[in-house]
Amino acid sequence: MHAAGDVRIEDVPDPSIVDPTDAIVRVTRACICGSDLWPYASMEPSENGQSMGHEAIGVVDTVGADVRDLKRGDLVVMPFASSDGTCAFCHEGLHTACEHVGFFGNNGMNGAQAEALRVPYADGTLFPLSVGEDDALMPSLLTLSDVMGTGHHAAVVAKVGPGKSVAVVGDGAVGLCGVIAAERLGAEQIIIMGRHPDRIALAKEFGATDVVSERGEEALELVRELTGGFGAHSVLECVGHGQALETAIGIARPGGAVGRVGVPQDEVIPGSQPAFFGNVTVGGGPAPVRAYIEELLPDILEGRIEPGKVFDRNVGLDGVPDGYRAMADRESIKVMVHP
Amino acid sequence: MHAAGDVRIEDVPDPSIVDPTDAIVRVTRACICGSDLWPYASMEPSENGQSMGHEAIGVVDTVGADVRDLKRGDLVVMPFASSDGTCAFCHEGLHTACEHVGFFGNNGMNGAQAEALRVPYADGTLFPLSVGEDDALMPSLLTLSDVMGTGHHAAVVAKVGPGKSVAVVGDGAVGLCGVIAAERLGAEQIIIMGRHPDRIALAKEFGATDVVSERGEEALELVRELTGGFGAHSVLECVGHGQALETAIGIARPGGAVGRVGVPQDEVIPGSQPAFFGNVTVGGGPAPVRAYIEELLPDILEGRIEPGKVFDRNVGLDGVPDGYRAMADRESIKVMVHP
Repeated sequence: MHAAGDVRIEDVPDPSIVDPTDAIVRVTRACICGSDLWPYASMEPSENGQSMGHEAIGVVDTVGADVRDLKRGDLVVMPFASSDGTCAFCHEGLHTACEHVGFFGNNGMNGAQAEALRVPYADGTLFPLSVGEDDALMPSLLTLSDVMGTGHHAAVVAKVGPGKSVAVVGDGAVGLCGVIAAERLGAEQIIIMGRHPDRIALAKEFGATDVVSERGEEALELVRELTGGFGAHSVLECVGHGQALETAIGIARPGGAVGRVGVPQDEVIPGSQPAFFGNVTVGGGPAPVRAYIEELLPDILEGRIEPGKVFDRNVGLDGVPDGYRAMADRESIKVMVHP
Repeated sequence: MHAAGDVRIEDVPDPSIVDPTDAIVRVTRACICGSDLWPYASMEPSENGQSMGHEAIGVVDTVGADVRDLKRGDLVVMPFASSDGTCAFCHEGLHTACEHVGFFGNNGMNGAQAEALRVPYADGTLFPLSVGEDDALMPSLLTLSDVMGTGHHAAVVAKVGPGKSVAVVGDGAVGLCGVIAAERLGAEQIIIMGRHPDRIALAKEFGATDVVSERGEEALELVRELTGGFGAHSVLECVGHGQALETAIGIARPGGAVGRVGVPQDEVIPGSQPAFFGNVTVGGGPAPVRAYIEELLPDILEGRIEPGKVFDRNVGLDGVPDGYRAMADRESIKVMVHP
């Protein structure tokens, strides 16, 4: 990506091992993320551009001398952040706060919308899969690299549990995975807040019980009506702009929790006083998806959840620029890339 | 209070039973709260003024026809909020979100800096004590009406527990009670952030292990140094203005939690991005002190905690205006009122 709206497919030198803990991964599936649309909308022109993409499944091609748990030929999920797997934060399950964290496709780090990429701390970062690289479950497995784990994180932070009422702000791929996560964690009521018929239909398939397509004050009133007048116990904020966060706080029940996973585009959290007077907790951040794979993987392998349904378009690398456009125009929910 | 800085002692009609669930309480001890200093600093002139005070211990004088659990002569703690004791929120332990909540000394509701006051939902609101009205523990018992329960709430929301590092922003009575609460809940390290020698000394007596008197960026660096470079697991925000909340978020460890109990003076929470990228949770609000009395009372009765030490001045009702001044000038930590 060279500037807002300017995505190009370019030949670059093959990646190579730099540190002995690196692996080179040949990407078999990648995708475009809702968060890639923020720079697509606003990136300042940059001379060298930014290699994009942070979600992938691939095959290990080369490993550095200190890689112990992986070997050439292993099929792996690549979470959107690299992590050493050994620091205090990784041990606590917060891999996105790893002392050596890196974010693929960000700040000069190489991206996964590519034929191959270098993965630092390969043992800590990559999660090996026991299926073939063309397994039918590939779309769902690919969501373990970000959106399914991110939706799950929102649900965990929002304290979703049996009997709870849940509202999901945002009907993008993360919001839809948030619906899956809420259903999976036992929510009694799941309100999807969105306005795109295709996404709403998928949300219902994933377990949404109610739909609110209005915004602002009207949306607040509707959610309160749907929840006995009090608001939702758990609110998943899956957008990232201030208005969405303000809505999320506004529709939370007193004592409720907001789990936010939309990358914040503003410097402040609106609604300090409503949050305070309602004792509403606001948490969340970059999901430690690496920590969640172990919990979520069996549900995918055994067919209990199908987050891969968020992919509604497939492209080769050449199709990536138009994939960005299609997602930005809301023509597509999420685009899968077959390099 | 008639305006900022204008506190007067006035004769008003005796309170009387309005609803059958009311009680009239003769106040034996009241006090001035840090939160009373906000209107003391900024209240617009008001024709009728606001009856002030929301913390009291007193003796039940009269009960309405529907009061079941209290009788004339009972000594009771009056939490700063009235609550019916029967709604869903009261059952959940969030009495400050009670469907019939009222805040004493606020929005026209009568205050406790008085000889007597009307208490709605007396059975739900008041907590009976089994000691005499001049018991030596009276100062500590009085803190159950607000500051001790509020400091405890900050600690609970900030997830204080054994082995945790805790930072307390603010050295007022609530911050000091936050130190007690953190120590009581097993914190390993307790950093008090304040700059008044008398308060710092008391914080150390209550269990503070470290002191940071700097502010802003310097304070952030010092707390990080004291916590192995990462910040505190739990941060208690006991002030209420934006700068304090920004500091609280800034000194939290990734994955940590901020419990805020300072009444927010701003409409937004600063530090949306640092909170997000550190997965820091921000929660808290008006403490359900009614819910906490049962847990905290035995520790006071058996001498394990002495939150009453925050009182460093005693006045009669006539001394209340000067009590406000003394607290506003930081001459006094907290003033007890003997009507």
